[in-house]
Amino acid sequence: MKSINDQAVDLHRKHQGKLTTASLVPVADMSDLALVYTPGVAAVSQVIHKNPAESFALTSRGRMIAVISDGSAVLGLGNIGPEAALPVMEGKSLLMKQFADVDSIPLVIKTQETAEIINFVKLVSPSFAGINLEDISAPRCFEIEEALQDLGIPVFHDDQHGTATVVMAALLNAARVVGKPFESLKVVVVGAGAAGMAVSKMLLGIESSGKSCQKIANAKRVDDLIIVDSMGALIPGRKDMNSYKQALAKVSNLSRKSGQVKDVIKDADVVIGVSGPGSISEEAVQAMAPKAIVLALANPTPEIMPDEAVRAGAVVVATGRSDFPNQINNVLAFPGIFRAVVDYRIPRITTPMKQAAAIALANLIAKPTATSILPTAFDKRVVPSVAQAIKEVYVK
Amino acid sequence: MKSINDQAVDLHRKHQGKLTTASLVPVADMSDLALVYTPGVAAVSQVIHKNPAESFALTSRGRMIAVISDGSAVLGLGNIGPEAALPVMEGKSLLMKQFADVDSIPLVIKTQETAEIINFVKLVSPSFAGINLEDISAPRCFEIEEALQDLGIPVFHDDQHGTATVVMAALLNAARVVGKPFESLKVVVVGAGAAGMAVSKMLLGIESSGKSCQKIANAKRVDDLIIVDSMGALIPGRKDMNSYKQALAKVSNLSRKSGQVKDVIKDADVVIGVSGPGSISEEAVQAMAPKAIVLALANPTPEIMPDEAVRAGAVVVATGRSDFPNQINNVLAFPGIFRAVVDYRIPRITTPMKQAAAIALANLIAKPTATSILPTAFDKRVVPSVAQAIKEVYVK
Repeated sequence: MKSINDQAVDLHRKHQGKLTTASLVPVADMSDLALVYTPGVAAVSQVIHKNPAESFALTSRGRMIAVISDGSAVLGLGNIGPEAALPVMEGKSLLMKQFADVDSIPLVIKTQETAEIINFVKLVSPSFAGINLEDISAPRCFEIEEALQDLGIPVFHDDQHGTATVVMAALLNAARVVGKPFESLKVVVVGAGAAGMAVSKMLLGIESSGKSCQKIANAKRVDDLIIVDSMGALIPGRKDMNSYKQALAKVSNLSRKSGQVKDVIKDADVVIGVSGPGSISEEAVQAMAPKAIVLALANPTPEIMPDEAVRAGAVVVATGRSDFPNQINNVLAFPGIFRAVVDYRIPRITTPMKQAAAIALANLIAKPTATSILPTAFDKRVVPSVAQAIKEVYVK
Repeated sequence: MKSINDQAVDLHRKHQGKLTTASLVPVADMSDLALVYTPGVAAVSQVIHKNPAESFALTSRGRMIAVISDGSAVLGLGNIGPEAALPVMEGKSLLMKQFADVDSIPLVIKTQETAEIINFVKLVSPSFAGINLEDISAPRCFEIEEALQDLGIPVFHDDQHGTATVVMAALLNAARVVGKPFESLKVVVVGAGAAGMAVSKMLLGIESSGKSCQKIANAKRVDDLIIVDSMGALIPGRKDMNSYKQALAKVSNLSRKSGQVKDVIKDADVVIGVSGPGSISEEAVQAMAPKAIVLALANPTPEIMPDEAVRAGAVVVATGRSDFPNQINNVLAFPGIFRAVVDYRIPRITTPMKQAAAIALANLIAKPTATSILPTAFDKRVVPSVAQAIKEVYVK
């Protein structure tokens, strides 16, 4: 039996990748050609020339998402560059098609300059209904995404917001399992990269704009949340924090604790690992409040293995892996989110939309248990529930 | 009965364009997901990270062409911008798929700055096996294309080279019909835009590099060729010519004629219109040598109507339209050219390759007649013949 790795390479080589294009209309003779190309296509162009918004209705643009990456922070592999990132981006496009019937294409780009990436997305935007940024390293990803929020089509960095949406869904149901109100939870987030920052903002009910954070009225939020990076807990006044961390420090860690994970985790209800193997110890979990919730999301090796977390007292444990219970997988979020984008021409994905999607995902599990807090990606209700939740916030 | 225009708009609205994406592999369960996405896809990325050229074999890149336009010179419509250009580009992608089974996607971009377009193509190049530039106005199109010839994948401006290839094929067979050797032909080209310049270089057997023109050894070439723009014939020393025209003037118009079409057309064997309606008069055709060949390519209204040309003495007349005999249509060239690009990973399309494609196209008509000098786009031999001709030049 070949390894998964060898099977994957064989499969990709056999099909020369995974994604292809197809025609929606026949081109069998000259009269077909006259409609899809010259001379008929000129009439279509003229309609759009009068009203550029018609490009969504009259071309594939209205159904088409770009999955854009510079290959600087590819899952588990790091900065491997655009060509090597392409199989991952093509996979993303495939999942969007398979799960939500949304068309998308991967665009990997040969630059890691923030300004060039921003300009690239602006230039290519007339071709698409939305942009999925992917595997772009922090803190550049924050600046790039924020600079593009007024583009007229949504620019959504999935490593941030897809992850945050599914984590929030998981935590809503984990809280039900352990019998604690979501709003009372004390949370420690280990890791302040793209995922850690976005998860923290989501759980604090915060929208960031420029380099400041604002609490959103009527958002769901946990009681307190402390973010710990490699230098320790984010706390106002700490040196060596970039401006994004400074802004988040102001609105988190209300008890102003400092130090490493072991120093701040005492009595926490939840620990969320978005860093790397070994960054959450059994001793740390032992110091948490009773009925601890542990989300250890590093892939392929979690911050703490599920059996260790349980031994240390955790009641609910989730990871990023499919071979343990409670897989936290972005594929629960992004297909439904982009389904809503193409169905309702949503110009921007907001935190209230993402929170609504998280609540909808959580509500798909009628009676969550310690080993069943989330639906699987193959649950047919997932995409329509997420899309509907986003629509409801959008049309309000 | 609805007009072609109304039918075309209806068709585009009904299908929301013409192009979609599709999956080549199943994603029915978790074990499929492990191969196409995490964790298996990481192995594919690592193979490419070691050898970026493997991206052609292991991802859709190896099959995928970008059809890129800034919407500055859209056929018959002019500078209508990126959104309005999208139906034309999507049509191009559709034809590439339908006729040659080559995958491609339209990318319309929100800039008409030469340097920004060049940089955009460079940035996006790791995603594609080749670039089809489309409907970019002259002289910017020359600078853009030339700046990108060393990218490692071909950058091919179809308005120039697709047109030139099919014109040369038509002229080879028209010469057979009138019994004149191709190499003896005296040609007047009316129009010095993208198509006019490229047709002239092709028929003169010239490769341009930077802003100079070099004769290619062993190329086919006509005896002499005069290009006429709105200010008159290109001739060395004429003022008001851009650098591309200056370079071409040096190697054309050997008899150094000056003036308008009527002044230079006396005794010409061939006139090629790539300008606009009315620019070739009956009187001009009457002044040509016996058995004149008239290619009047402006769309939808030719420079001179076929019946007028015949009345003035032309023996072979071709236009860009499907409702007259001898349609000169780029779709005879670009699908086969890009079929060769993806099959043989050709890094650059040279003039000898295009001439070989033209000869192969012409040779598909065993016995050309005045009303049958070219195959139709629906002739199944066209794409393989063009691709094979290009391959043979490439592997030499």
